[in-house]
Amino acid sequence: MSGKHYIGIDIGGSKIAIGLFGKDPGMLGKVVLPTCATEPFGHAFARMVPAIDRLCTGHGLGGMPDGIGIGCTGPVDVRRGLVRNPYTLPGWPDAPLVEAFASRYGCPVRLENDADTALIGELVSREECRKVKNALMLTFGTGVGSAVLRSGAILRGEDFSHPELGHLLVSEAVSSCYCGGSGCLESLASGPALHEAARELGFASLDEVFARPSGEARSRLVGAWALHVTRALWALVATLSPEVVLFGGGVADCLYPHAKDIITQGLSSGVFLPPTRVKKAMHGNDAGMVGAAALVSGLFPFS
Amino acid sequence: MSGKHYIGIDIGGSKIAIGLFGKDPGMLGKVVLPTCATEPFGHAFARMVPAIDRLCTGHGLGGMPDGIGIGCTGPVDVRRGLVRNPYTLPGWPDAPLVEAFASRYGCPVRLENDADTALIGELVSREECRKVKNALMLTFGTGVGSAVLRSGAILRGEDFSHPELGHLLVSEAVSSCYCGGSGCLESLASGPALHEAARELGFASLDEVFARPSGEARSRLVGAWALHVTRALWALVATLSPEVVLFGGGVADCLYPHAKDIITQGLSSGVFLPPTRVKKAMHGNDAGMVGAAALVSGLFPFS
Repeated sequence: MSGKHYIGIDIGGSKIAIGLFGKDPGMLGKVVLPTCATEPFGHAFARMVPAIDRLCTGHGLGGMPDGIGIGCTGPVDVRRGLVRNPYTLPGWPDAPLVEAFASRYGCPVRLENDADTALIGELVSREECRKVKNALMLTFGTGVGSAVLRSGAILRGEDFSHPELGHLLVSEAVSSCYCGGSGCLESLASGPALHEAARELGFASLDEVFARPSGEARSRLVGAWALHVTRALWALVATLSPEVVLFGGGVADCLYPHAKDIITQGLSSGVFLPPTRVKKAMHGNDAGMVGAAALVSGLFPFS
Repeated sequence: MSGKHYIGIDIGGSKIAIGLFGKDPGMLGKVVLPTCATEPFGHAFARMVPAIDRLCTGHGLGGMPDGIGIGCTGPVDVRRGLVRNPYTLPGWPDAPLVEAFASRYGCPVRLENDADTALIGELVSREECRKVKNALMLTFGTGVGSAVLRSGAILRGEDFSHPELGHLLVSEAVSSCYCGGSGCLESLASGPALHEAARELGFASLDEVFARPSGEARSRLVGAWALHVTRALWALVATLSPEVVLFGGGVADCLYPHAKDIITQGLSSGVFLPPTRVKKAMHGNDAGMVGAAALVSGLFPFS
């Protein structure tokens, strides 16, 4: 096997997924390891190195990878290549991810927030999205994560911080959140918020609502979710002009198919909103690895 | 008199203001003309040229200006240098502003939306803001206008359009707007919306509310305005990380001094919001000319 090859690593609070890639986004091999996030980073690093080595040799690649991209559950310091996440990586304070891999492999190593690598992975995996320079992804799970590509670059705040756009205020309902706001998207449209709403409607869980044929409870949950999401997107589309909006996460898998028309129609009524294509994310758990590898393979060429 | 000199033109629906500038933002001279917006552009151009010539010769400047910057009430096509504004410049369809001045004066000419030149004018006029690369200005008058500087460049949508961020949805109140949304900022926080709210409280006008000593009506108007503004800023600050937020326009002149603490406190409660400085715009009607001249004088160096 010839040509260059790249490693994409997706680090979450419970699992680390490592993929081997060539020049295109098709994955050549994959290993999944436990993170053991309360243990020191060195322990995880000591598991990752042989996994990377095995991936390379197992695919007839004798040499080192030509680049390693990492998407890591944030906050991360992308400029210094450090983990700064006491929430889901408590054993890794200031873990020098980039330096550790660069020293071991002597190749370019780049670190980004995992929400950003997931967005990049989704874009480079779709033939029709490879040239998209403005995109937004909202991921609905335990929280509501966000990632934005703007003019081909990852949108960053001051100090290169990752904007948390899952906390835009979408309702005057009093729903307090650790973000400090009331009526924010996450407090009303995340998994826990929907489970609570399902219980208030007399169901044991959100899954129970969607396990049955369509009915009043499902319509109410979908309608409210679509309304909250549309109000957040109204601001984000007006401000950022994304050509594509992607919905990711388990909650979106469940609600988005039923909510898509309401969201699309809501946005199309906005006279000043630029047109945008709303789509479901398709590459799920692998998108983070694909996007991480794209950071160093040249598939995602912008900074 | 030596050194380079520049013309800044601010074109509104009723008035055209033309200023002469040197290298710094201090104005050397100014002329104000009626727009006569239903007449053809050629009529206005024929009034502007002698005004520019008089400004130059009147200040001992024999030659042509070294650059002409124009801020024009939008929509404008900044790439082609054309007016595209049937609303407030109905007699100027596709008026070739840039070409007309470039042919006459043989110097660099640049056109931007007047909201953007006003923001740039405010920034370059403040010593402490000259190096600001991320800023936002909201202008409250008959409507709610917006301008954003992001990474030193004017924020534009697809097709270089000017984002209309005065129409973010801030309330679930049913307040229909020509923007297609319900509960948008302009429908609740513009001059007409406040006049209506004042009348509902038994006053003849908004001015009458503020002509009296502080009272219940003023508190209610200010409180509601501050809340709506804070909710819009929550989204804009989270997304765009402006170092400075400027409030312009007559409505802000009236309400902002009373609302500032509520807005500042509201934003500071946002855990994920980057810090931002909230200020009143100071240069009022002259800011547009100052900013327009800055487009060509090098004071505003970014595209």
